[in-house]
Amino acid sequence: MPVFTPPVVDMLFAIEEAGELARVSSLPDYEEATPDLVTAVLAEAGRFGAEVLAPLNAIGDREGCHLDNGRVTLPNGFAAAYRQFVDGGWNAVPFNPDHGGQGLPWLVATAVQEIWHAANMSFGLIPMLTQGAVECLNEHATPAIKAMFLDKLVSGEWTGTMNLTEPAAGSDVGALRSKAEPDGDRWRIRGQKIFITGGEHDAPSNIIHLVLARVPDAPTGVKGISLFAVPKYLVNPDGSLGRRNDVKCIKIEEKLGIHGSPTCVMAFGEDEGAVGWLLGKENQGLTLMFTMMNNARLAVGLEGIAVGERAYQKAVAYARERVQHVAIINHPDVRRTLLTSRALVEATRALAYYTASRIDISKRHPDADLRAHTHARVELLTPVVKAWGTASGIQVADMAIQVFGGMGYIEESGVAQHLRDARITAIYEGTNGIQAMDLVNRKLLRDGGAAFRDLLNEIRTLDAELAAAGSESCTVIRHALEQAVSAATRAADFIHAGHGGDAALAGAAASPFLELVGITCGGWMMARLALAAHRRMADGADDPFLPAKIATARFFAEALLPKTGALLAAVQAGSGSIQAFRDDWF
Amino acid sequence: MPVFTPPVVDMLFAIEEAGELARVSSLPDYEEATPDLVTAVLAEAGRFGAEVLAPLNAIGDREGCHLDNGRVTLPNGFAAAYRQFVDGGWNAVPFNPDHGGQGLPWLVATAVQEIWHAANMSFGLIPMLTQGAVECLNEHATPAIKAMFLDKLVSGEWTGTMNLTEPAAGSDVGALRSKAEPDGDRWRIRGQKIFITGGEHDAPSNIIHLVLARVPDAPTGVKGISLFAVPKYLVNPDGSLGRRNDVKCIKIEEKLGIHGSPTCVMAFGEDEGAVGWLLGKENQGLTLMFTMMNNARLAVGLEGIAVGERAYQKAVAYARERVQHVAIINHPDVRRTLLTSRALVEATRALAYYTASRIDISKRHPDADLRAHTHARVELLTPVVKAWGTASGIQVADMAIQVFGGMGYIEESGVAQHLRDARITAIYEGTNGIQAMDLVNRKLLRDGGAAFRDLLNEIRTLDAELAAAGSESCTVIRHALEQAVSAATRAADFIHAGHGGDAALAGAAASPFLELVGITCGGWMMARLALAAHRRMADGADDPFLPAKIATARFFAEALLPKTGALLAAVQAGSGSIQAFRDDWF
Repeated sequence: MPVFTPPVVDMLFAIEEAGELARVSSLPDYEEATPDLVTAVLAEAGRFGAEVLAPLNAIGDREGCHLDNGRVTLPNGFAAAYRQFVDGGWNAVPFNPDHGGQGLPWLVATAVQEIWHAANMSFGLIPMLTQGAVECLNEHATPAIKAMFLDKLVSGEWTGTMNLTEPAAGSDVGALRSKAEPDGDRWRIRGQKIFITGGEHDAPSNIIHLVLARVPDAPTGVKGISLFAVPKYLVNPDGSLGRRNDVKCIKIEEKLGIHGSPTCVMAFGEDEGAVGWLLGKENQGLTLMFTMMNNARLAVGLEGIAVGERAYQKAVAYARERVQHVAIINHPDVRRTLLTSRALVEATRALAYYTASRIDISKRHPDADLRAHTHARVELLTPVVKAWGTASGIQVADMAIQVFGGMGYIEESGVAQHLRDARITAIYEGTNGIQAMDLVNRKLLRDGGAAFRDLLNEIRTLDAELAAAGSESCTVIRHALEQAVSAATRAADFIHAGHGGDAALAGAAASPFLELVGITCGGWMMARLALAAHRRMADGADDPFLPAKIATARFFAEALLPKTGALLAAVQAGSGSIQAFRDDWF
Repeated sequence: MPVFTPPVVDMLFAIEEAGELARVSSLPDYEEATPDLVTAVLAEAGRFGAEVLAPLNAIGDREGCHLDNGRVTLPNGFAAAYRQFVDGGWNAVPFNPDHGGQGLPWLVATAVQEIWHAANMSFGLIPMLTQGAVECLNEHATPAIKAMFLDKLVSGEWTGTMNLTEPAAGSDVGALRSKAEPDGDRWRIRGQKIFITGGEHDAPSNIIHLVLARVPDAPTGVKGISLFAVPKYLVNPDGSLGRRNDVKCIKIEEKLGIHGSPTCVMAFGEDEGAVGWLLGKENQGLTLMFTMMNNARLAVGLEGIAVGERAYQKAVAYARERVQHVAIINHPDVRRTLLTSRALVEATRALAYYTASRIDISKRHPDADLRAHTHARVELLTPVVKAWGTASGIQVADMAIQVFGGMGYIEESGVAQHLRDARITAIYEGTNGIQAMDLVNRKLLRDGGAAFRDLLNEIRTLDAELAAAGSESCTVIRHALEQAVSAATRAADFIHAGHGGDAALAGAAASPFLELVGITCGGWMMARLALAAHRRMADGADDPFLPAKIATARFFAEALLPKTGALLAAVQAGSGSIQAFRDDWF
């Protein structure tokens, strides 16, 4: 069996039906993104992922990265594969054509990215981080800085990093202590950063670090943070590489997973100070960094989904060949596990693609009101895709181990790697708990619940369509979705009513609320996909993929949507028991 | 902070209130098991676990086991610690005094075992496997075989193993192909076994393998399997060790976790045939092996619980010291995580101890009817403790990583090891899916639901007590427990009504049914403990442990018991969608 088969049929279906490709390709400059082109891009990306990246995945896990006197070497084959990746133009898919990008919609880029993560998550982190740097520079750098860095980041010849975390400043970014001092039109950066993905390695010829630091006399906390671009090698006026900057990797971490990705401790300015360029204005660094992080959150959600897909495929293949009395795929309990996995992967994928399509609309649609409205939807769903997507991916990877039984616990079988790799996705780019609080505090409460009500109202419009479809499956889906939307409504109402008088409520309710919203949105997506499948079948399409999609949507409704009732109860329990529990009782 | 603090206060409370120590110590030969003695035993075991075993845990993980020319060496310090363990008499706690055992109740032995697993799960596997061998020999061996092996297994000077699995025979034990041929009054065993925990190592002076194999002309399948005792070294008539038997370790597996425990591929009889002694009668091996496995299942459930406790302690300690704005233990979302962990650990512990106490009653009570009735309860709950206990422990270990955030993903922090270690517990001794099918097919359906109805009726008797307690917490618990019992009743009714006409129903419903039963029993245990805490407080006890217990029980009722509604829905969805999904659709 092949190492990994990119699920291009399901991806394309999700692009067309959840992401509404037709709407996206009617946006300015996206006219080229026809179904034919997207199919061709996915097929080609799938080939590259399956043939070049996937075979390196286990090698990366076993071999890990090597630090030798400040130089980090990726596992055998990674750097060469990265050069092929850059030469193939894959790094440039979604970027601005002015800087050499291909200018394809985020919707399409998102699907392409999913392939890299599924094939080799450690590898996929390289372009993912670069993407954040490109977006940030594209939006916030001066023309001179853009000229210095952007083209080679777009091509992928150089890569990017995000430098937020310090030993005492994790989720509390405002506690960071790295310093920047002016030096002519440049700055000198000093400080130590930890957990820097790809902080140093041998795939690119230069690395552009985006670094948060404080300028002299900056306000304390998050309002006194500025963002700087700090290259590994300074860049000469002609674009060639100059001398080595005062930044180095002093340690790589030994991690549970993603061994093929170096997680670096970076020392900036231990000698003369690392030369950097200010991005945006002083003390606005956090806002700029959030530009990067917002999009990165979607990408991290996608990582979870992608690794889930990979693990699901492995579990199915094993279940077909492993005989215990009969092939274990015939055991109803194993079928339940596989179907749960499939339902989670397909629903989270659809929600991620839907959200990506809304990024495209929110950036490109001619109607400013619609852009703003769609932007609010993206903001609302971003933490959901991140947290629910990663939690689901981890769950799927875990279930794949279970399908393998004893073999799943043996590293040789390769399936445990997916759980180890996926596990980080619930942590970085803001832990899933942080995502849940973002959802409740910034997305649900700040606008008085307008964006959330709007989402639920849109989900409710499916009710009539599901009723009209007239199939038994759609009736089951309709009923379950209605219950879930009702639970989501009541949960939001409870939080709205209570948070004014109870400062702990939002935090106490956040995690079950996010899961409730995630499952409800997943049910919504699966309902849309089931209806689309019905439509295509009614139009004469004869593809087993379509009844399978309807059956998966029905299973999601039967087995997963009912969880929303339990999550509503957890929300409605409020903060009382949680806060009344004394610290010294733990 | 100490590496690990055995939770002896909670353990003792669970022994007294969930395990009803007073009832157990009124059984014949258990009179010595007074609260004072149990307290002293737990304190001493706790000291040994914390001081000797816990510090070796991370060493075992990092160093792993070594195979060199058929000899396996445990990680540095393990063999010496094992000698201390044996010298301290710890191996002998529950065993028959006729063979040197201490003859303490299983209830007490279970708590003591929990300490070993929490301190060092890899180490804890050594006595756990030996315990299975002791029980099996004690019940099924001839006096001559007992004389040869039993005393030194009881003392722990020698250890035991279970040899079931072969490459093509895992959950389907009946497919095994190892052979046994008569050789005088002994047998010659030939075959290969995989996944043999402690199959070879340097802690004991001899290893007694219990091996399943087929005698000549045995029936096919599970009815043609016999059980043999096969020592690593033959034993001379005077009890000294003779020549090496024809059995050797040819590989140790590289695993996700429990690196301190060698998982061996064992080759029996590659030369002259391994000498073995038949236990019980020919072709009755599986029944005998199930004697071992039944008890082992409880022990494995306990492993999950124990590792969960250890991970929970680490998460609490980290949450107290890690400051993000404030110490993160003050964040409601972190408190929810910690409280969920605590609730799961305490509920699963109570259920495991309760079940252990029922083993004591089922073996020792003078009333034969009560023994039989209690035995049925043990049979019913064994798969629940195994599967729900391990699933909960894994979840708690996973949540501990999440509390650590980025540090949780770094192996240096030590918390990821607990997830990696615990993960096997959902797989071995029968995967949790197998446990769920055992619960439905053998325990729920076989007796027409009598044992299960009896359990639910017993839970219902708490209703009046909870009502009479008159506290707000007991009211909340009472309501939630009633809902859970109702869900459990309806789920069982659904399976009873449907399984006759739908062969796939039991398998399709098994996993959600088991989780439903687990959570319901957990809520029952927590309700009992809350009532006991109320009683002690009413009697004037002034210990913060008591209100903490009530608060934890209330949280369990608010946050965890409502899941039973969703699980009921998953059961009631039946097998339709699962079976209708075509194999080629996956």
